[in-house]
Amino acid sequence: MQRFDIAIIGTGPAGLEAALTAKARNKNILVLGSATSSEKVRKAHSIMNYLGLPAISGADMQKRFLGHAQEMGVEICDEKATMVFPQTDYFSLQTDKGFYEAQTVILATGMAPSNTYPGEEEFLGRGVSYCATCDAALYRGKTAAIIAASPDEEAEADFLAEFAEKVHYFPLYKGEVQVKEGIEVHRERPQGIVGQMKATALQTDAASYEVDGIFVLRESVAPTSLVPGLQMDGNHVAVDRSMATNVVGLFAAGDITGAPYQYIKSAGEGNVAALSAASLIDARNRARQA
Amino acid sequence: MQRFDIAIIGTGPAGLEAALTAKARNKNILVLGSATSSEKVRKAHSIMNYLGLPAISGADMQKRFLGHAQEMGVEICDEKATMVFPQTDYFSLQTDKGFYEAQTVILATGMAPSNTYPGEEEFLGRGVSYCATCDAALYRGKTAAIIAASPDEEAEADFLAEFAEKVHYFPLYKGEVQVKEGIEVHRERPQGIVGQMKATALQTDAASYEVDGIFVLRESVAPTSLVPGLQMDGNHVAVDRSMATNVVGLFAAGDITGAPYQYIKSAGEGNVAALSAASLIDARNRARQA
Repeated sequence: MQRFDIAIIGTGPAGLEAALTAKARNKNILVLGSATSSEKVRKAHSIMNYLGLPAISGADMQKRFLGHAQEMGVEICDEKATMVFPQTDYFSLQTDKGFYEAQTVILATGMAPSNTYPGEEEFLGRGVSYCATCDAALYRGKTAAIIAASPDEEAEADFLAEFAEKVHYFPLYKGEVQVKEGIEVHRERPQGIVGQMKATALQTDAASYEVDGIFVLRESVAPTSLVPGLQMDGNHVAVDRSMATNVVGLFAAGDITGAPYQYIKSAGEGNVAALSAASLIDARNRARQA
Repeated sequence: MQRFDIAIIGTGPAGLEAALTAKARNKNILVLGSATSSEKVRKAHSIMNYLGLPAISGADMQKRFLGHAQEMGVEICDEKATMVFPQTDYFSLQTDKGFYEAQTVILATGMAPSNTYPGEEEFLGRGVSYCATCDAALYRGKTAAIIAASPDEEAEADFLAEFAEKVHYFPLYKGEVQVKEGIEVHRERPQGIVGQMKATALQTDAASYEVDGIFVLRESVAPTSLVPGLQMDGNHVAVDRSMATNVVGLFAAGDITGAPYQYIKSAGEGNVAALSAASLIDARNRARQA
């Protein structure tokens, strides 16, 4: 398998700046995330304090950022990272579409979900999953629930329904839900996952659903669920001034590292994270040659 | 005397971004530094990785940065800060032209001079000065030396010569030196300042000059000379992730805080420093009103 120098997870200002800088340092990069950059950027009304781009709309900023990345030859791999496994001197990455390897990883997935559900982390891998595409086949003939943060997950529900006998769908978003016939849509607030050895039920503010598995599909996975053993500082990934986390070779940048939630701060951190990752790779290469 | 909310020292990417952000937060700011922003930015050949400004020349970047600052109503006070004195809950600032007060200060003066001369810090205020305009009158009828990093200091030499009986001028730059007749220009490398209670001589690689005072005129003053008691980390100002230094109310941003020396990193830090300063001011105001 091709091993990338740097895998960058996230395509907002932190991820794209990290990609530009890694390219400028001649690193071989994998950029995972939405090909249209950050929804949060696009929806911003007007940004006054991104030095060099006066009074710019979010939509224009998004276009400029993506255009700049494209000019520098950055390719976005439009996949969602679901797991990052630290190995001895590299990382294995799992996405909703495949597997990758990289020497270093930069987490730039944006603001971490403020809360996981009670039981979610406890039963992760034992009935709780973040990726229907990956695990749907395990639910052949069984009952599964999907908690969906956005309409993007409707396709996941349809796919899951090809295997599962019954699918309960809990949309957290407003607006019409368009899923296959037979999928039960519930407008209830999920409150927790219960079980013994494995998850057995999803509880909501209205009822309890017996299930064999629960898919929690958010825009981004909670950092600690993405990377086992990752050290947090409150609700944010703990980093030092070089943007290094407690996991060697793993860096973080942007909103995921905490306030202020500002585009220029995120971009600055993406730059630092990419240079720190590049330095680590260079030092290892020198050590190997010595 | 008017007390500013935030005094920002430096007009490179860190200082200008701090100014934009402080303005956006409705703070009353004093921006001290070159009205033409950073010489280092202007001279840069081409910058590839400032997200949003693809393949831009330093000169164009400088224009954009200054234009953005101007659009946001940022006024640059073209004076050179020579001292920052921490008081109980504010700072007094001295420049080559006057005195100011501010609740908080952001240091964004760029890369710290790599070395001070032996004896320089020891005799600061006792024969060593960073500001000819401020201290020239002390040298009436005496002998003084100027170590000058740039041709900008030739005017300082001329001014000093109106008071001093003899002025030795040591240019550290190449090219012609245009100073008043009578000023002795020496193409020698200064190596140290010696004395007992006060400085008495400047030593170079070629000779020793008996003097009453020595003016060390660099583009920026060493951070520890600018702010007494400031904690360094090697050759850089030590800061935490909020860009706070060890002096309460004093923040730092940009190259002065260390590598990587990159424009987007500097701008990101300027943003964080301004928001941290604004938060401190707001917290104090709330405490006063409570």
